Order: sequence, then C-alpha cells, then structure tokens
Amino acid sequence: MVNLLAVAEGAAVDESIVFAGVLLSLVMIYAASKVGGEISNRLGFPPVLGELIGGVIIGISALKFVVFPGVGVSAPDSLLMQFLQFTVSASPEAIGSIFREDSQVISILSELGVFILLFEIGLESNLSELLKVGTQAVVVATVGVVVPFAAGTLGLIYFFHLPVIPSVFAGAALTATSIGITSRVLAELGQLTTKEGQIILGAAVVDDVLGIIVLAVVASLAGTGQVDVKEVGLIIVSAVGFLLGVLFAGGLINQAFLSMAGIFKTRGGIIVPALVLAFILGYLGAALRLEAILGAFAAGLVLDDTDKREDLEKLLKPIADIFVPIFFVVVGAKTDLNVLNPAIPENRSGLIIASFLITVAILGKVVTGLAVFGQPGINRLAIGVGMIPRGEVGLVFAAVGNASGTLSPSLNVAVILMVIITTFLAPPLLRFIFPPRSVEA
Amino acid sequence: MVNLLAVAEGAAVDESIVFAGVLLSLVMIYAASKVGGEISNRLGFPPVLGELIGGVIIGISALKFVVFPGVGVSAPDSLLMQFLQFTVSASPEAIGSIFREDSQVISILSELGVFILLFEIGLESNLSELLKVGTQAVVVATVGVVVPFAAGTLGLIYFFHLPVIPSVFAGAALTATSIGITSRVLAELGQLTTKEGQIILGAAVVDDVLGIIVLAVVASLAGTGQVDVKEVGLIIVSAVGFLLGVLFAGGLINQAFLSMAGIFKTRGGIIVPALVLAFILGYLGAALRLEAILGAFAAGLVLDDTDKREDLEKLLKPIADIFVPIFFVVVGAKTDLNVLNPAIPENRSGLIIASFLITVAILGKVVTGLAVFGQPGINRLAIGVGMIPRGEVGLVFAAVGNASGTLSPSLNVAVILMVIITTFLAPPLLRFIFPPRSVEA
Repeated sequence: MVNLLAVAEGAAVDESIVFAGVLLSLVMIYAASKVGGEISNRLGFPPVLGELIGGVIIGISALKFVVFPGVGVSAPDSLLMQFLQFTVSASPEAIGSIFREDSQVISILSELGVFILLFEIGLESNLSELLKVGTQAVVVATVGVVVPFAAGTLGLIYFFHLPVIPSVFAGAALTATSIGITSRVLAELGQLTTKEGQIILGAAVVDDVLGIIVLAVVASLAGTGQVDVKEVGLIIVSAVGFLLGVLFAGGLINQAFLSMAGIFKTRGGIIVPALVLAFILGYLGAALRLEAILGAFAAGLVLDDTDKREDLEKLLKPIADIFVPIFFVVVGAKTDLNVLNPAIPENRSGLIIASFLITVAILGKVVTGLAVFGQPGINRLAIGVGMIPRGEVGLVFAAVGNASGTLSPSLNVAVILMVIITTFLAPPLLRFIFPPRSVEA
Repeated sequence: MVNLLAVAEGAAVDESIVFAGVLLSLVMIYAASKVGGEISNRLGFPPVLGELIGGVIIGISALKFVVFPGVGVSAPDSLLMQFLQFTVSASPEAIGSIFREDSQVISILSELGVFILLFEIGLESNLSELLKVGTQAVVVATVGVVVPFAAGTLGLIYFFHLPVIPSVFAGAALTATSIGITSRVLAELGQLTTKEGQIILGAAVVDDVLGIIVLAVVASLAGTGQVDVKEVGLIIVSAVGFLLGVLFAGGLINQAFLSMAGIFKTRGGIIVPALVLAFILGYLGAALRLEAILGAFAAGLVLDDTDKREDLEKLLKPIADIFVPIFFVVVGAKTDLNVLNPAIPENRSGLIIASFLITVAILGKVVTGLAVFGQPGINRLAIGVGMIPRGEVGLVFAAVGNASGTLSPSLNVAVILMVIITTFLAPPLLRFIFPPRSVEA
C-alpha cells in the first residue's frame, strides 16, 4: 500500500520497505538494549553500560546488523539490509536508498532519544537545588575543561612533538563530558538528586556549552589558521542569552503549560503540550547553534515546579523507555572497535598516543572534584569520576578532525579510543565509588 | 557543531538543522492536533475529526506550514522550511535536502502513528467478547462491507461512467467502519456494554479486519493495473492465513511476551517486549506484501488476553497519544481541498460524486441493522447508525488511492468528504437514536 504512496511522492524507493526496515532496525536495537541492559543490571552495573555494549555487538564492530552509511560503509555491509533485501526481494539499487533513508530515520529517532532523556532528567532535577550548587558546578566544569585541554595539548606538543594545531584539536576533544551518559548513570544509581549528582549534572551542562565554544574556536583555527573572534563571540552570547532567557521566562513557560494542560480535555492533554514546549526550546537551542538537548533539559527544568509534574513524569516514562535506548544502542553501534587492531600501523602509534590521552582524560576530570569548595564531607572522587565519560561530543571532535584532515589517522584513532574507554569505564567506576542509593525500576 | 559532523560523514546537509526541522514540524502538528481535537470535542464530535481538519489547516490546502515533497511541491512551498531557512541561515540547496529528509522522517513517524493506533485497537478489542456476539457481528460486518462496496462500485461505473479500478477503489473505501470512533462514541453514550453496543463493537472489529484485507486486495489491484484473480486470491489467502496463523500462534506469542515481561527488571520491561513483538509481526506483514498495520493489529489481539494487558494498555496510552495524532494531522495536511473549488468544472463533478458516495456510505451501513436476526426488540437503527463513521481506515484508502494515482483528485476529495461527513454525522445521530444511559468520560 505505502509502496504506491512512494510513487506519488516521487520517491525513489518503496516506502513500505523503508518502514519495514525501520521496524527491523528497531527490533534489533531493542533486543540489544534489553539483553545488554538486563545482563549489565544482573552483574550490578548500570543498564546503560549493557545497552552501549549491546550496540557494539550489533553494530559496525561485530555483527554488523545495524550500521550507518559512511566512508567505506554501504548497504552490502549491513546484515540487516541484506536480510531485508532477501526477504522483500528489492533490487541492490533500491536497497542502497533504503539503507540511507532507514539510517536517517534511526539517527533522528536516536537524537529524539537523547532529547527525551535530557527532558526527563530536567524534569527530575530541581532548578533551585541546581542553582544552589551553581557556583560549584561552574568551577567543576571550568577546571574539567581547562585541565584536560591544557595538559592534553601541551603533552602532545612537548612529549610527542606533534604540530600545534592537531595538538590543540586533540586537546579540545578531551574537554566535553557526555551529559547523556553521565545523567543516565546517575539516574540509574539513584544519585541524580544528591548534592554530588546535582553538581555533576550542572557541571555537565556548563561543560557542554563550553565544549561547543571550544569546538567553534578550534574548528575555525583548523580551517583558517586563526580564531574567528566574531563567530566565537556570537556563540558565547547565544549560549548565555539562551540559558538566562529560559531562566527568566521559566515562570511564563510554566504558566503556558499549566493553562494548556488545564484546558485540554482530550487524550494527550498533558504530555503533548509538555513535549511541544520542549520541542520549541530544543528548536531554539539548535537555531542558536547550541544544542537541541540543552533546550530539552531547560524545558524539563522549568516544568519541574508545576503541580502536574508527577502526572507528566509518569506519562513520559514509557515514552522515554522506548526512545532513550535507541540513542545508547546507536552510540555503541557506531563505535568502531577496529581501531584497536594492532596489525594496522597507524593503530599501533595511535595506541601509544591513546594511552596518554586516556590518562589525561581521566585525571583531568578526576581533579575537578578537588576544586569543589565549601562542601564538607562531599564525595569529591565521585564528582571527578562522574565527569569522565566523553561520549558523543568527543566523537564529534574526532569526526570533524578526521574530515578536515587536522587529525592524522593515528591521532584520530587515539581520540576515538579515548572516547570509547572513558565512556565504557565511567559507568562501572561510578557504580563502585558511588553505591546505588535505591533500586529504581 | 553537528554541522561539522555532517561534513565528516559526507552528508549533504547539517544533521542538527534536519533535527531542528523535525522538532518544528512536530510542534506544528501537535498544535494542529490539540487545537483541532479540543474544538471538535467541545462541539460534541470525535477529536479525530478536529485533528484531521487541523491538519488540513496547516497543510497544503491552507497555511502550507507542513507540506510534503511531490509534483510541483518543493521546499519554497513550505512555510516551515522558509522559516527554518531564515532562522538557521541555510542555503537554498541545503534547505531542499533538509525538506526531503524532514518529510521522510515525518512520514515514517506518521506510519508509526497508524501502526501504534492499530496495535492499541487490537489490544482494546476483546477476542472472547467478540466471539460471544460473533455470528451477529460477522453478519452485520459482512453486510456492511458488501452493500456499500457493491452499491458504491456499481454506481460509480454505471451512473458516473468511471473506469473499473478507480470505482472499485472508491467502493472499497466505503467498507471499513472506524472502530476507534465508534467505540469512543458508544462509551460516551454509556452504550458500550448493551447488546447493541456489543454487536456494533464486534462488527466494527470484524469489519476493520475485512477493511484491511480489502485494502490489501485493491491496493495490489491498483498496483498491477488489472484484475488478476490469482494475485488477488493469493493476497486474500495471505491476509487470512497471516491473521489466522498469528491467532493460532497467539498462545506462543503471548507466552514469549509474558516470559520477557517477567524476566526483565530494567526500565521498559513490559512496553519494549510488547512493541518488539508488534514490530516483528508488522515486519512479517510487510514482508508478506500485506500491511505492517495488519501485524500491529494482530499483535494487539493476541496480547489482549495476558494478565499484563492492563499495565500494557496504560503504558501504551501516552505513546499512542504522541504518535497517533501525527498520522491524522499528516493525512489532513496532505489533503488538497483546493480541488473543491466549484469554479473549476472537474471539481463540480467531484462534489456530485461525493454526494453519491455519502448517500451510499450512510444507507449501506444503516441497512446492516436489518440483517440482525434472533434478537427481538433490538434497536436495529442504532446498530446501523453505529456502523456509519469511517474514520482512519477510509482515510488510509484515500491516501493510498491518491498516492498511487488510482483515485483522481476529485474522486480522492469525494472519498475524504465521505469520511469527514460520516464521521461528523454519526455522533449526533447516534445520540438521538441511542439516548445516553450514563455519562462516561
């Protein structure tokens, strides 16, 4: 039926096969997330670790069920696409288009996953609690950006004798904590609302913004050889303006949500207006060249104090349950562990640089705990460890650096390894340093 | 930031702008669905009618916020894309790609919407209750499929001298009663548990399945361009075989779901396995050249008798609340009501056809009440009127017929008008014939 729909829309491929491919991809993604998440949970680790590993297993590194188009990766490399092609008897040309369209849809669903995660984390966080630890969070974020950046860059220049710009780029890749991974682990450990959890979360948000600014700086440096002051200034102004704007308009946004939720009598009367507000702020975040997830988090924060919050959290839960795992499995599936293969020459030199970067990446964030002041008895190690995972932001640096030719193959491998190790190390480390407070379903 | 990622991945466009476009589209779609749905509800009509009209208002017929690529429709025709281009300062070439990618994602989300709707309808349908009034329901459903189909098709061929295939297609669009609208109206009138209500509900369920089979038949018919008896027979056998096969394997599927739901301790332990089963059956439906939504409906039916059903329904509700409206708004947005303009000659014939289709649609269902036997004192008129609303299944016919080019623009509008009028007319008519017993929300 939708086959015919595709013809009318001028599309090159059968819409119903694209949809069937999406269904199959989701089946594989959910299977990986549940099997991985459950095993991880039984072993006492946060489920997110199992979802990441499940993603690695079905992804480019192992079974190649769910892979994404890229350099040297096309439809014949995807087992799922081969299976689809066989079962629906599509032509090789058609399956190429289907592969690209399905990958596009799964990527967007994965972005919706981290978007909804951050919205949920924002809802669970308390704005006034977060502001109470605001100064601490800014200090932790700043130290966690400056130390790894400086140590990484200088180390690469003086110990490894690398040129300045690649060193600056790789150093910059060490800066941004993955807010998605950190917040999910904290939530799973029941530590999201502790003082440590709030400082980590606040610092991760600030750090994300700092990471965007750093990326703008180094990208313009790598591109033109100099820093585009106007461009960087614009991003800083946008970031500050966005965060302050949301804080000041928070009451208004709250009121808008409450009136809508109060007026609407039909199905979805609470969840739909809440998501609409989150989507508007997410769009604003993206339009200001920040990130959509910052808008999602902000929306969750400002809706936090409404009396419909509990209803909303309950309604959001199953939605998050089906969207969020897509993000983590996709992050795992896109992780190419072939960079670990020592038979490839650039991987060997990459491994040596990687061990340096990994050390800097871990220590550079662990020291941030020492920067916390005026909080007697606080778990400083937990804060430092909580800032370790780099995740998606570090991978963006690696991809940009690789594409622009700024990072040599081995330096690129080293940055990817750093991201993989910090991402996969943080959940078990946090689990031991920061014992779970209560078991959350 | 993700801008640069796009470069690395060799993609033509900025991934974060594609995502921002999806967020904006969803904001417009939800706004249309809530405003339309609420107004419709206040006026005593099913919210789905308002969602459809909301879609018409933001779509190609009116404001042109949410439009889809097609003949003569590109990015500059979309107000939303113009807004996006202006706010993110993208190039006209980039916005063309973004328009296509966003439309692709919204189309898939809309397909997920109707998929989840039919999964929910399957869950809400009670197989054993259905079997109790089984004979009556099957008779009512069969008469209600055969009479409008035959009268509509023959009338179009002999009175309007239309070709056979468009006539069969339009006739087929007259067959399926909307179980969603009918059951909601019955609940509102407190008539869901009366004998009349049970028969209407049962017949609507049977009729819904028949409608899906009829759709598969006529879609394949329209695709090949000829009446291939063997092909049609094969599809009927596949459809019936698929549905019966799933029903016979129902116990096994049920058991698989229950064991998974029992084993899983992490978040999403009930909803994710349920959706995975639905997605697998949906994929099978598509791979058998039937319909993904047929699999969704079957999955809902077989999971119906599990003791986790209530939990599952509760969890599915917010998911349906955010997915289902996308389908109805998108159907409305794709509906070009400009062909209704009576200044254009061929549109006048469209209006004449519409009045014929509407008459057949109403009378063809009203006579079904006469087919009820062995039920003295039953309100036959109420049963007939209860079967009138066509809703979503009729709209699927319209969308498929329009997309495949099987239905001419005026015939397509005639079918949509038929759906709108029957949906619009049924609630007040039913209220008059079938006085409310108690007000249920």
